Amino acid sequence: MSYKIPFSGRAHKYTDDEKEIILKAIDDAVPLTQGRYQKEFEEKFASYIGTKYAFALNNATAALELSAQLCQFKDGDQFICPSHTFTASAYPFIKKGARPVWADIDKDTRVVTLESIKRCVTKNTKAIVVVHLYGFIIPEIEDIANFAKENGIFLIEDVAQAMGTEIDEKKAGTFGDFGVFSFHSHKNITTLGEGGMLIVKDKKFADILPMLRHNGHLAWNIQRENYWTPAMGNVDLPQLNGEYLMPNNYCLGEVECALGIKLLDRLDEINKQKRARAIKFINKLVQYDILEFHKEDSLKHNYHLLVAYVKDGKRDIFMQKMSEEKSIQCVVQYYPLNRYDFYKKLGFGYANCKNTDDFFDNMVSFPFHHMMSDDEYEYLLTSTIEVLKEI
Amino acid sequence: MSYKIPFSGRAHKYTDDEKEIILKAIDDAVPLTQGRYQKEFEEKFASYIGTKYAFALNNATAALELSAQLCQFKDGDQFICPSHTFTASAYPFIKKGARPVWADIDKDTRVVTLESIKRCVTKNTKAIVVVHLYGFIIPEIEDIANFAKENGIFLIEDVAQAMGTEIDEKKAGTFGDFGVFSFHSHKNITTLGEGGMLIVKDKKFADILPMLRHNGHLAWNIQRENYWTPAMGNVDLPQLNGEYLMPNNYCLGEVECALGIKLLDRLDEINKQKRARAIKFINKLVQYDILEFHKEDSLKHNYHLLVAYVKDGKRDIFMQKMSEEKSIQCVVQYYPLNRYDFYKKLGFGYANCKNTDDFFDNMVSFPFHHMMSDDEYEYLLTSTIEVLKEI
Repeated sequence: MSYKIPFSGRAHKYTDDEKEIILKAIDDAVPLTQGRYQKEFEEKFASYIGTKYAFALNNATAALELSAQLCQFKDGDQFICPSHTFTASAYPFIKKGARPVWADIDKDTRVVTLESIKRCVTKNTKAIVVVHLYGFIIPEIEDIANFAKENGIFLIEDVAQAMGTEIDEKKAGTFGDFGVFSFHSHKNITTLGEGGMLIVKDKKFADILPMLRHNGHLAWNIQRENYWTPAMGNVDLPQLNGEYLMPNNYCLGEVECALGIKLLDRLDEINKQKRARAIKFINKLVQYDILEFHKEDSLKHNYHLLVAYVKDGKRDIFMQKMSEEKSIQCVVQYYPLNRYDFYKKLGFGYANCKNTDDFFDNMVSFPFHHMMSDDEYEYLLTSTIEVLKEI
Repeated sequence: MSYKIPFSGRAHKYTDDEKEIILKAIDDAVPLTQGRYQKEFEEKFASYIGTKYAFALNNATAALELSAQLCQFKDGDQFICPSHTFTASAYPFIKKGARPVWADIDKDTRVVTLESIKRCVTKNTKAIVVVHLYGFIIPEIEDIANFAKENGIFLIEDVAQAMGTEIDEKKAGTFGDFGVFSFHSHKNITTLGEGGMLIVKDKKFADILPMLRHNGHLAWNIQRENYWTPAMGNVDLPQLNGEYLMPNNYCLGEVECALGIKLLDRLDEINKQKRARAIKFINKLVQYDILEFHKEDSLKHNYHLLVAYVKDGKRDIFMQKMSEEKSIQCVVQYYPLNRYDFYKKLGFGYANCKNTDDFFDNMVSFPFHHMMSDDEYEYLLTSTIEVLKEI
């Protein structure tokens, strides 16, 4: 089915300047991977976010896989994770041997709270994954980080949707031990559809991440007579706390990195434009209290997505009318992970997350891609009002 | 150090037509990943190679990781692999639980033989990884495939360097259970520096590969009332022979796929040009028998790389003179894997591969990127002759 306003699989177009950068890198990047653009991208990203160690990766899942690997889970270890998130927030930690305990979200902000996390903690909790979902930085992230630190628990911030958000000038991703970022096609900035970044606080992690990312490659640490002896480069087995870690190949190409460097200049502007549109949308609908938005007119929210709770069990009729009468493709996100066959089969089908279930069963996510035109935006707004009047 | 002719980290430039395709996809790909370009790339690739099931991936290591995963190794299982190869040919199989047994190469062709493989077979052999190294399709690949089949052993062909080569009109990659291809920056065609392809014969594998590649995502197999219930898409746990397999995120972006479609039109031509240059080089040096090339003027070789054995222990002096007197960066490849710290630490430091050791200790690999100009090529040729006269 073709919609007048689809829920776009792509967030934004590229400017002429950005296309020029792409063409430049296509011509002058030698090699086309693991080169100077990656280094510059990582440095600029680290500086933008306000951190020391940043590693460009082929996607955000790779950043989560690496975080999970660096947690070094043992038998019986658990991790806490909201069930209201994308599956890649959770499954890498299961692959690496930990069992999930599903944390509930707050009814109004749709993100986890310190209290909802505390309810999940056991003596086996080794890691907490928090997700700054929909583009909103978790208000209690600092308290959560302190709690994790006091209890010797790793904190992983999934910032895939909330890049650039901040509390008191401290950016999402810098509170935890690991900060995970995404440049996927849907995200506020995208490096040609795929891309990610991992930031870490601990130098021990930073020292081995290049090897974990790139097949165990490293330079020789010995004085060599010729540049080709004993071989061009070394391949070694990264070691952490006395244990070996197996490497991966999670490299991001140079063209994507060159583009990423440029896109960082536009991220704040895109976030600002999305926030302005969201706030206007919410304000215009204020009299229709059947829709409950989460309004936050500050750098705490980038409105990657615009979602609302539909009261009185009217979600499905709202969706139907938007789709059939207005040709607008709203969607419903994020299926509580414990309800997917995937997690049920693994024995992780149980969750005590009533806010999550209630929100998912009654929520709507509007098309909200940055490249939506002003006309389309106005059509979305007026159509929404018309449908709300009907139901 | 800056060389007059470096060993380039990049193989080729892009034509104006190819750049146009890139710009087109940058504009019109929605989404920018997992879309129609991927599908078209896979279909065209499968047709070019002469196979049924092809899966575009973010790199060739991912193709090897997936092959290893699909082998479903059990405790004690072994895989056979040449030690004369890139580390990614081997380590994914170790990650998935198998122990390597290193196969030697033939002295003249520098690839494995049926005999060298047979010497490594035990009752625990579950898989054989063969590598069509330097761009040369293993002459006995059909016999090796038959041998593997008769003995219930998986055959993985690493075709990263030999894309487009064939024997009797049957292309490298189509003999085994798995064929692994690379579009990395070094390769004869590259999708912006990173990219890979996995082909498989077995429909059972093909059925679950999309899920294994993309976070376990799949469509609902139930009749649904609304497009959003129970959720937009399903996430399930792929199953094979009664066992669950964990998913990954190995997606390749749409722009890379669009470019890949176009590059397939030029692959045969690039291979032909490289072969012609290699044969000319070998012929011009025929009187200097200190260099032993492997000459193959047919579609069996694409001369991804141009390598020679340097007789009389003169490799290092040859390399030194090429580097210091001619400013040409020859390199030495591939360090026998068992000699790397990585494999030694894992207990895989032993190999009975005397041809491999002898070849590596005496080999030279010339700069041989496709984008080398004719003038540079002539300089490489005359410089090589001058150095050979001196030593």
